[in-house]
Formats: sequence, structure tokens, C-alpha cells
Amino acid sequence: MNIFDIAKETGFSIATVSRAINNSGYVSEKTRAKIMKVIEENNYSVNAFARGMATSSMSQVGIVSTDSRDIYQAESIYYLQNELKAKGYTSLLTCSGIDLKDKQQAISLLLSRNVDAIFLIGSQFIEPKARDNEYLKDAAKKVPVFLMNGALKDPNIYSIRCDDEAGSASVTRLVLENGAKNPLMIMRRRTYSSAKKMRGFENACKEAGIDPTDRILQNGHLDGMLEGLTDLLDNREYDALVCADDALAASAIKYCLHQNLRIPEDVQITGYNNSSLSHIAIKDITSYDNRIEYLCSTAVSLMNQVFDRQEVPADSVYTGKIIERESTRKKEEKPKIKTSRAEMDEDEYLF
Amino acid sequence: MNIFDIAKETGFSIATVSRAINNSGYVSEKTRAKIMKVIEENNYSVNAFARGMATSSMSQVGIVSTDSRDIYQAESIYYLQNELKAKGYTSLLTCSGIDLKDKQQAISLLLSRNVDAIFLIGSQFIEPKARDNEYLKDAAKKVPVFLMNGALKDPNIYSIRCDDEAGSASVTRLVLENGAKNPLMIMRRRTYSSAKKMRGFENACKEAGIDPTDRILQNGHLDGMLEGLTDLLDNREYDALVCADDALAASAIKYCLHQNLRIPEDVQITGYNNSSLSHIAIKDITSYDNRIEYLCSTAVSLMNQVFDRQEVPADSVYTGKIIERESTRKKEEKPKIKTSRAEMDEDEYLF
Repeated sequence: MNIFDIAKETGFSIATVSRAINNSGYVSEKTRAKIMKVIEENNYSVNAFARGMATSSMSQVGIVSTDSRDIYQAESIYYLQNELKAKGYTSLLTCSGIDLKDKQQAISLLLSRNVDAIFLIGSQFIEPKARDNEYLKDAAKKVPVFLMNGALKDPNIYSIRCDDEAGSASVTRLVLENGAKNPLMIMRRRTYSSAKKMRGFENACKEAGIDPTDRILQNGHLDGMLEGLTDLLDNREYDALVCADDALAASAIKYCLHQNLRIPEDVQITGYNNSSLSHIAIKDITSYDNRIEYLCSTAVSLMNQVFDRQEVPADSVYTGKIIERESTRKKEEKPKIKTSRAEMDEDEYLF
Repeated sequence: MNIFDIAKETGFSIATVSRAINNSGYVSEKTRAKIMKVIEENNYSVNAFARGMATSSMSQVGIVSTDSRDIYQAESIYYLQNELKAKGYTSLLTCSGIDLKDKQQAISLLLSRNVDAIFLIGSQFIEPKARDNEYLKDAAKKVPVFLMNGALKDPNIYSIRCDDEAGSASVTRLVLENGAKNPLMIMRRRTYSSAKKMRGFENACKEAGIDPTDRILQNGHLDGMLEGLTDLLDNREYDALVCADDALAASAIKYCLHQNLRIPEDVQITGYNNSSLSHIAIKDITSYDNRIEYLCSTAVSLMNQVFDRQEVPADSVYTGKIIERESTRKKEEKPKIKTSRAEMDEDEYLF
């Protein structure tokens, strides 16, 4: 249904329908009521409708991905798009790249197409400097903005994110409990999400009495290639590589095998995202499942609630879960009879 | 620029502008000329414009992917979307799944949104039964349809595809020339593209005097997991696994290592697509580069030519190239002085 259909069904001109919905120019109350009745009978959210009306592009939302080739983003696009489709929305996709200027252009493009809402996939949209995030706040003055795995405080910006700090801490605890003494975290470019993962790793190290200083390898050019890791790790005898995503974990596995290190006996390796890549390496990768599908359906549900003018939380944080596979050791079962009070306390603290 | 802007700039009503562009109802020649002048001054393709006009969604094209999580499709979406953006088009993406009914719905959805053209990613849209492809021909009555790596004969359907038969033949020849005597091809579900790859494999086998019968493992449920391959290969002592995509090749590598087979000494393995996955396995995968980026830019260029009413080929076929990596043997250099006439003839024949 579009502006032409409504004009036809109500018997009013397109211009009148447009004025009624956009509150621009004079329309009698009686006329407006008739037009709104038809819209409501057809089950359209007047709110979304009104926004889309200027170009008659109803129920269309924008999705920005920095790079759809990234497996996390590819999976997010899939689930988000399917969830939107199921709820009657079509999706305008734009891949922005990571430069601020390009991200700003992507948002402008979507706004010029009168989308009803904007979804940003991944945490790469939040810049470290506050003034560089003004473009998101400006966009939010026009349409609600949904940050999927990012967070930014603003009246019309809604964040839905996995607790990556807790997630990263829990995979780190797993390898430490399974005997690792010398863990290293490997990540790419610094983003909102990778900063959280870093903090989770550091916390888990401290809990176990390990100083986290110099235990984080961060490299914006780390593209999942063997060469990068070989140069960087340089025989430091790490016994656990906690990786910020599954592709990095697959590269870490490759590196270890080339160094004749056994997985998980000599080195335990963990990934993140529980993507299809966790099955592609020679050892199935223990990974943190941050529930992309849940993230996407929650984001769309939030959007519908915002359109219905319901009050929704500005920030929703949920937890994922570890999927244990071959790349980490099995937890040694403690003989139950010997369990001391101290050990029980420790377990409670750790979980 | 949308219908409201044009109405404003020309001074005519929205309804008049709409009638002029869509050739619906009466508009004087003078009025029509004024409206078209404004549109042309703003550098819009009247053709694309006219189609988009009914809902004022200008310069918007539809992309259908069966599954954006697939790395080939994820990369295609990325390059296609970027190319479209560079040319001033926005992209409506819909992920359809592989069931005919769902593919039909995806096309209907895009048509209801008045897209100017439809791009179908991958060959999974062409059904084996002619009547099941009517939905594509029906869509092509409304907008041009671009099949990326598929082919279907119809006046408004344009195919752009890599010559997968030649590509598959050339990777097969590579492993045979490097000493393989007992090759197997591994593929998933049968599609237009996988049928071509199969034929290429068979032709290369025949050329080398190897009977291709029972040398093709085709399994719709082969999801890149080790278990599937372990059950299926069953100690048949294949010395080359020619895989229809890189994820399958990564699984094949995993299988071989679990069987204590050396790569490439005992078994040579090839992938297809030259995706990022060709670097993720323990051995870098020799893969056929089917030039996704070229495919996407060609498709968009063809679209622009169709909009400009230029005559374009209904079917464009291009070749890719092999990228040799660690998973295949190096070609033994033949001592030049001993080169016989017979060998030279053979070489000419094979290439």
C-alpha cells in the first residue's frame, strides 16, 4: 500500500493525503480522520507511515554494515534481513567501510531515502571521540537508530548488545581453569566491542593471579594470515590464545600447527562469535556464542515497540554462552569427596 | 530528488508529474516537456525514473541472495552493493532461501517495492524444470533481471557468468599434470554452476585418459563438516580432491589430516572462488579465482546500458584464473633439452 492507494481508497488527492500524514499545510479534521482510518484499517503504524510518506517509501529500514564479507556481519545481515522481512519491512543495505567520512555518507544516503529506522551492525560505528559520533545523534533526530553490539547515549538511539566483557572473561576463565598459565589475547582493530573483550580478559587474568600487562596483541592489520602471527608471537611459549573472533582463532591454530605445537595439549585456543568458521579449522574451535540470531530478532522487536510509541530500554545487554569444542582442554573433574570449602568459594566467585 | 521535488520545481501537481512520467492519463505535450526537462537537467535516467515513479522510489534496485552467510554470496553482496552505490543506486536486499516458493516471494516483494532492476546472486535461482523459471520471466516483463552466475534465455534477462566449466577443467588439469591419477570431485547441491563444474571435471579426466564415472561426490547435506567427508570418502585412496568451493576444500584438508595424509604429497586439494577461506585452512588452498569483483562491476555496467536503451549481450561469459597455493604440487619442470614433439603437442592440447 502506498500514497496512491490511500488516495484512491479515501477519494482524496495525493497532495491532501500527503499533507494529512505529514502535518504540512491545511487539512480539515474530518478529512484527516478519514485518511487515518484507512491507514489504521490497513494495519500500518501511523508513526512509521508518516516518516516514510514523504517519498511514499513505507516500511523500509536501512542497514549499515561496514563490510558484509566479514562472517559476523554476513550472519547479522542474514538474520536481521529475515526478521525484518517477517515483520513486513524491506531492507536497504549499504556497506560503508570503516572510515568516518564513509560511515557518515552511508547514514546520509539512508536518510535521503526516507528509511523508517537505521540498524548499524557491529561496534565499528562508535568513534572514540565524542564529536565524531555527532553524525549518529543527528540521524537519531530523524529516525530511531539501533546499534547492534555498540552503545551510545542519546534519546533516540537504542543499543542491543551481548555482554562481551563477561563473554571474554568466561572463555579466559575456561582456559585458565583447564591449566593455562601463560595466556595471550589476540585482537584486530580497537572497537567498542574489542575494548570490552580486552577488559574481560584482563579481569579473568587478575582473578587467577596473572598480571595481564603485555598479554594483549592488538593489530589493525592482522588479517587472519599466518605471517602476521608468526612474526608477532615469536616463540613466547603462550599456552592459551584467546582470540577476538573465529577467523583469528583459525589463524592461531594454523600458526600452532606450523610450530609443531599440539592443540589443546600445548596450546588452548578460543574463538568468538560461534560462526561457521568455528568448524572450518583442523580442530573445531571452542567459541563464545554471542547469539546473533537473538540479537537481530530483539533489535527488530525493539523497533516495532518504538514505532508503537512504547517505552523501551535505551540499552539492552544479554549474555551468550561458551560452546566447548576440540581447541580447549576438558575440565578435570575434581574428586567430589575432597572438595574443600575454599574451592567451592572460588568456583562461586569465578561463575 | 523525488516526485515532490519535481512537482515543486516544475510548479505542477504531484499527480500531473506522476501522469507525465508514467504515461497514465492526460498531460499536455508542453507540460510533459517541462517536466522531462527538469528530470533531465538533474541527470536522471528517465527510463529508470519512470519505473520507479509509481512509488517515487528512484534509482533503487533489488538484490536477492539465497543466503548471505555463504562467503561467495557475502562477497558478491559487498562488491555489488558498492558498485551500485558508486553509480547512484541504493540496494534493497532480500535473502530468499533456496525453496522455489520463497524465491518467488522474494521477487514479488522487490517488484512490489518498484525496484528498477533485480540482481540475483548465484546460480541457485535457475530451476531444472522450465515451468519453475516462469517467475523470473514474469519479473523480467516488468524490470530487467541480471543473473550473476546463472543463465536463462529471455528478452529482458541478462546473464553474466564465469565460465565454470572451463574453470573446473583447468583446476582438474592442474592436479592431473602434477601427478594425480585418482581424482574425485566434491560438490554440494546440484545447481546450474555445479553442473558446469562437473562437466569441466569430467572433460579434463577424459582428456587425461581417466574414466570420470563414479568420480563425483554430490551431497546436498554436505555442509563443510568433517563427519560427512569421513563417511563418504571411506579409504578410497583418492590422490586429488577437486572441490566446488573453498569451504569444501577446507573440510577436505581437515579430513586428510585426520587420516594422516600429507597435502599435497599424498593428496592434492583445490577450492573454487578464491575467497578469504582459501587462507584459513592449515594449508593455503589452490583455488579458482572467478573474479567476483569483475562480475559485479560488469553487471552494474550492463544495467546502466540497458537503462540507456543500448543493445547489450544477453549472455556474457568470462574466464577466471587459477591461484596456485600450498594445497597442490608444483608442476615439475620438464628438462628443456629432452622435450619431445609429442610432449609439446600434449601441452598445446591441454591448454
